[in-house]
Amino acid sequence: MADLTRLRDAIRDVPDFPKPGILFKDITTLLNDAECLRLALDAFEERWKDENLDMIVGIDARGFILGGALADRLDCGFVPVRKKGKLPAETKSAEYALEYGTDVLEIHADAFDRGARVLVIDDLLATGGTAVAAARLVKDIGGVLVGMAFLVNLAFLHGEAKLGDVATQFLVEYE
Amino acid sequence: MADLTRLRDAIRDVPDFPKPGILFKDITTLLNDAECLRLALDAFEERWKDENLDMIVGIDARGFILGGALADRLDCGFVPVRKKGKLPAETKSAEYALEYGTDVLEIHADAFDRGARVLVIDDLLATGGTAVAAARLVKDIGGVLVGMAFLVNLAFLHGEAKLGDVATQFLVEYE
Repeated sequence: MADLTRLRDAIRDVPDFPKPGILFKDITTLLNDAECLRLALDAFEERWKDENLDMIVGIDARGFILGGALADRLDCGFVPVRKKGKLPAETKSAEYALEYGTDVLEIHADAFDRGARVLVIDDLLATGGTAVAAARLVKDIGGVLVGMAFLVNLAFLHGEAKLGDVATQFLVEYE
Repeated sequence: MADLTRLRDAIRDVPDFPKPGILFKDITTLLNDAECLRLALDAFEERWKDENLDMIVGIDARGFILGGALADRLDCGFVPVRKKGKLPAETKSAEYALEYGTDVLEIHADAFDRGARVLVIDDLLATGGTAVAAARLVKDIGGVLVGMAFLVNLAFLHGEAKLGDVATQFLVEYE
């Protein structure tokens, strides 16, 4: 196992973003560093390479960065899960809770064949709302949800408990 | 040179999206197909591998999918150019014209060192507004803009003329 403290060190804390009192974990400084990007993708690839995955589902928008690269590494197709109104063809949608109100994620209804083996990836797990919605969408269109992978887990927000018994991977965790 | 008609065939036409009268070129069907995704990345890698690139700049949001994977292939860092308000640290911004009004793209001011050799990538070149803004941002923070790569060029919109004399690559063009 590679030393993932290198990844933790590359993540930047930005205070008061997106609003006062929030300490934002900025992963762009990790992505800017070619060696860190490779380390992260090596860890994802190593964990999932023997799972016979067909599709990597990336969550809009930072999940696209890791998801496209992991699809390439694992010889999978890539499927975007997007915010409402961004996908042009027939979609399935799933609502999820925000701090105030709700929002909607969508997937193309024909993104993969029934029974496809799918990994969902995003940059960060917080309260789990978008991750749960993405998992539901994968199942709604007939996919087998093999696992969910995240660069960062904000463990103190307990998002993982909402994911049920699906296999998960986190490269950096904050307790 | 691989046969890129396979890519053209994998792109789906969606009529009347995002509004009546527009024939939308949907690249998600290409991304869903592992072989097409690999073919596209092979073509990008082959074109730019000897340019000593340091950074791949991907444009929000579909440019992230190809950009993350190409950064991985070329041992580069990845830098997101995002819509206003999405990047947490200090940014430079560039305005660009929409059909009605304007919008703003941003880049982190410290995304790379001065003199970094940069490729900008996006899924599709249309009128060129976002591409020109992204190119300006790269130069604003001291990058050397080596080239711009796109999966699709809607050549009938003449976006390429706005890009100046930068090196470009298009995998699929519509006249």
